[in-house]
This record gives sequence, structure tokens and C-alpha cells, in this order.
Amino acid sequence: MVQSLDLEVIADSDNCPVSLPVQRTKLIIDTDPGIDDAITILMAFQLPEFEVIGLTTIFGNVLTKDATRNALHLCEVAGFPDIPVAEGCPEPLKRGPPFIADFIHGSDGLGNTLPPPPKNKKIDKNACEFLVDKVSEYPGEVTILALGPLTNIALAVKKDRSFASKVKKIVILGGSFFASGNINPAAEANVYGDPEAADIVFTCGAEIVIVGLNVTTQVLMTDQDLCELRDSGGRYGRYIYNISQFYRDWHVKSDGINGIYLHDPTCFVALLKPHLFEFKKGAVRVETQGICTGHTLMDLGLKNWNSNNPWTGVRPVSVAWTVDAAAVINLIKELLKKA
Amino acid sequence: MVQSLDLEVIADSDNCPVSLPVQRTKLIIDTDPGIDDAITILMAFQLPEFEVIGLTTIFGNVLTKDATRNALHLCEVAGFPDIPVAEGCPEPLKRGPPFIADFIHGSDGLGNTLPPPPKNKKIDKNACEFLVDKVSEYPGEVTILALGPLTNIALAVKKDRSFASKVKKIVILGGSFFASGNINPAAEANVYGDPEAADIVFTCGAEIVIVGLNVTTQVLMTDQDLCELRDSGGRYGRYIYNISQFYRDWHVKSDGINGIYLHDPTCFVALLKPHLFEFKKGAVRVETQGICTGHTLMDLGLKNWNSNNPWTGVRPVSVAWTVDAAAVINLIKELLKKA
Repeated sequence: MVQSLDLEVIADSDNCPVSLPVQRTKLIIDTDPGIDDAITILMAFQLPEFEVIGLTTIFGNVLTKDATRNALHLCEVAGFPDIPVAEGCPEPLKRGPPFIADFIHGSDGLGNTLPPPPKNKKIDKNACEFLVDKVSEYPGEVTILALGPLTNIALAVKKDRSFASKVKKIVILGGSFFASGNINPAAEANVYGDPEAADIVFTCGAEIVIVGLNVTTQVLMTDQDLCELRDSGGRYGRYIYNISQFYRDWHVKSDGINGIYLHDPTCFVALLKPHLFEFKKGAVRVETQGICTGHTLMDLGLKNWNSNNPWTGVRPVSVAWTVDAAAVINLIKELLKKA
Repeated sequence: MVQSLDLEVIADSDNCPVSLPVQRTKLIIDTDPGIDDAITILMAFQLPEFEVIGLTTIFGNVLTKDATRNALHLCEVAGFPDIPVAEGCPEPLKRGPPFIADFIHGSDGLGNTLPPPPKNKKIDKNACEFLVDKVSEYPGEVTILALGPLTNIALAVKKDRSFASKVKKIVILGGSFFASGNINPAAEANVYGDPEAADIVFTCGAEIVIVGLNVTTQVLMTDQDLCELRDSGGRYGRYIYNISQFYRDWHVKSDGINGIYLHDPTCFVALLKPHLFEFKKGAVRVETQGICTGHTLMDLGLKNWNSNNPWTGVRPVSVAWTVDAAAVINLIKELLKKA
């Protein structure tokens, strides 16, 4: 268990060991747990590189209120029940009641394992307020890991015009770049969940990293990996195995694979170990109309356009392009086994 | 010069040589010449595999009336001044005056070489009538090579409900599959020129082959290739070199390459020598709204969708996926040199 201030032991000029504080990244996880969200949250809490300063919740894999319940539950599982959990928006900016992927994550969002009710409560502030407050309190220091539809973050961008310049980085699981969607051929589920919000965030001018299906569908945890994890003796092994079974069965039916895609954990590794990825920079926009609603489209910068277009003048973001999938899966497995 | 009925010499049962007619594909070229259209038309007329039974014209690289003038001119250059040329629609189905790419092909569509006015006239039938009549006259025998926006072909599909089942094949230069557009990051110029028409054609149920920018931008005719062609002594070498200079200069400015992409000729080679390509089959739809208007999106069939979507039930078409670019460019060069 980490989260307390770690000390790194080095040697001083007389070669005597001294202890210095490790510089830890302040992290807010915006999440709709969700099975791969759950795995990611458990990973993040155990890493000395990060100080998780709060979770904000959003609809997607479950309704927002259930995401809040699951976030509180996961903080307890991780041994950090007092981490603030701020509830987010119950629906997308413009589209009414959200589309919920309960057929993927189970009706409880955790593979129908029916976890006990959490002891703690959400904080009084909502997700947008919490995001704006923390980013203002620590300008240039807060990284956001966004694992669901981007409604809360879009609201923060709209509420505080300096939010985009004050946030250190926003690392996003979303979209599919020059590859198929997963909600339909055009769209990935998180962006589809609130395309207007995604377009606001991708074009807000913040330092943004996007990890899409073109990369995450290369990172597969097989049935064998899940069994290894279950039998590893690690603190989370059996828990993750159990919540993953429903998700795994959906992958068999939907994608014909015996295992699970590690979408959210892969996105987290892109923050933790970016050298395991290659990134391309370009302006990204989201379609909000027609049959391609939710489609993410990137200007690769290969061409001098003859006239302005909707990508003109948009600040480039970093898009994950390739991944060392074997290294990522190994890293995730080792982290989870040693917990 | 071909176009007359060729005889193929084989041996009979007594090993005496006999002559049998070569089965030639009846071909209609729907075109907006256009420099790469011009190269393609000159190639098609010289090949014994094809009987060009007519040209139909469309806006795109030029206005439709100028495409008609250029088509008549090119039939004369090729030595077939009596091939019927049927003028097509002056504008897209729903979008008013067309967008014309004169900055790419010159104001005359032939690199500002100002060709002499053709001696012959267009036929009285319009393109839609000509397409429907010829496909009805020779059911299962007529292939259409579509090199511009698909307005004429969409009108034929709408006019005659059996058109899609009677046409042998429609081979289309259009779209960009999991790759960048060329009119903007989302759209290729032909599909952008009439997205509603393209969606009608791609989903009409005919046997369809689509060759998009993902493939054609791999087939580059370099400055050196153009000079070789000019100096080859072939009938069209100097002509093609001359009309290509304006187009070449635009490629330098727009794409940073010293040469020209052979979009239309590559599409024609996909009909002539399909073994030089790999194809994938899938339902293709076109976005007709929003910032991605004109975007082509294909369902790769990798996933069992949880619910119906706009690609559900659409007959799969063949989409060019890979190309042996060196073989294609060599074939095109040899054909043009030997003419």
C-alpha cells in the first residue's frame, strides 16, 4: 500500500545515505467503474509515482450514481477509504439519458459480483467543482486520467476558462484512430457517450494524450493470464478474476476472444510508462452529427490544406499510435500480482 | 489502337490454329477529366481486354460541361472520336453548385494546356439515361469505371430499380479507408463532391469495388517517370507530360512530393489486374452531416454488434486494402510508353 509520502534513499556528498521525498504526480481519476476501470484504480493506488487526490464519477459502464458507489467501494478495496469521491454529471451535455453498457460490465458495473455497500459517502462537491478546485489549488500539478465519457471535464473547461492551461495533463481513454469503433463501426463507447463533451475537451488547448481502440485492442489479458492472477496470492488477484468473468464472457460473444481487452489499464500505462508507446501529434475533432456521431478524426498534418477546415487552428494533441503490447500486459500483470 | 474486335489465335483439336473472338469487357467510364482521368481514358482505349462503349461526364475536377468537352477531346486524342459521350448532372443531388478542384487540375481540367475544341458533339441522352439504357441492353455485361462524384450512377440506381442487379460491376475511385482525406482530414474529393450519391451507390447492392486514397497515395509517378514518358516516343508520352505539369506543381505545394499521385489509373488497374491488390469486404456508408461530411466508413466485420447500426444489412463491397505499388506504376508506365 502506498499513497503516503515516500522517501527515496540516495547518497549525499560524503556518500552518506540521505532520504529525499519522491516527486509524486497528483492524480484525479475520472471514471465509470466498470471492470477495466476497477483494475486501473487498484493499480494507481499502489504506485509511488502517483498521489491519487480524488476520484470523480461519470456514467458509461453504469449510471453515474452507481459509478460513485463503485468508486467508494474500490477505494475501500484499495485500503484508501478516505480518498474524496466527487459525483459527476448524470447525463451527457446534450443527449438526455445516457447509454449504459450494462451488457458489458454487468448491471452493477462489476460483473454482477454485487459488492457490499461502501461505508463512506461521496463528498458534497460535484465532480466539476472538485476538478476546478483541485486544478486551481495546484496549478500545473494535477494530471487527470479520464476513463469514461468526458462530460465532467468538459463542464470544468466551460466553468473555468483557465482550467485547460492550469491542468498538467489529461490522459484519456477514448476514440479509435483510423480503426473500427466498438459501439458501432464509427464510434468508441466513451466518446459516443458524450460526443459534444469529447469535442470540447479534445480542442480545449490543454496538454492532452488520447489512447484509443487502435492501441488498446492490442492489449489482451487472456484466460490464462486471469487464472495466473487469481492464483498469484496477490491481494487483488481473486477479486479481479471474479469481477472479470462477466466482462470476459462478453468478449467471447462480441469479439471472439478468450480474454479481456485492458482498455483503461493500457491508458494508465501510457501515463506511467509512455516509452512503451509511440504517439502522433495532430488536431482531433469529434463528429456530433449523422451516422458517424462519436467518430474521432485526426488531422495527421501530412498535407497543406487548400482552405480552412474544422481542424484548422486546433491545438494538436498526442494520440497513441503503437504499443509494445507484450511489455504493457507484463507490466500490468506484475503490478497486480505483487500488490 | 484497339477497340475493334480482336481475334485470339489458339489451336483446334487437330492442332491447327483457329481464331476465336476475345471476350472483351464492355466498359463505361464515368469521368470528370481531369488529368489522372485523362491518363486513364487513354489507357483504357488501347487495351484489348476492354470495349469502351461510352463515356459519361460529371463535375469535380471541372464543371460537367467542361468534363464533356474534355471527354470528347480525349476520345479524339485516343483515335476514337465516335465513342458516345453522354453529359451528366451539373451538380450534386442535394448541395447546389458543385465544388470544383480547378486549383488542382487547372481551369480547363487539363493543366491549362487549352486543348482545341472537339469536332464531335455529346449525344442527346444524358448520362443517367445512357447508363440505364446500356446496362439494360447488356445485362450482366457492362462494367462502370467511376472516376468522379457518383451523382450520375446514383441517379441511374434511383431511376431503374434493377440497375444494381443488371450492372456487372462498378469500380470506383473514391473515399479513404482508415486513412486521411484529401479535401480535408475527413473526406476524399470524389465522395465529398456528392456524399448523398456516394452513399446511395455504396449501399445499392451492386457488385462494387472501391479504391480509396489509402491505396492510391502509394502509387506515385515521379518527375523522372514523367520525363521518361515524355522521351519514350510513345503516342501519348509528351501529351501526358504536358497536361501533368500543373497537377505536379500542386502536389509539390500540397503534399511535398515531386511527382503525381495516379489515383484514377490505379483504380483502373484494380479492374484490369486485381491480383496486384488485396481487398477487404465490408459494408461501407458515407457521412452526410457534420464536420465529417464525405467520410467513408467501413464495417470490417470484426465484431458482433450488440444492436443494429447504420451498417447493418448493407451488402458488403470490396475495398482495396493493399497494393503492389511498384508493379502498378510499372504497368502504367509500360502501357503508356508502348501506346
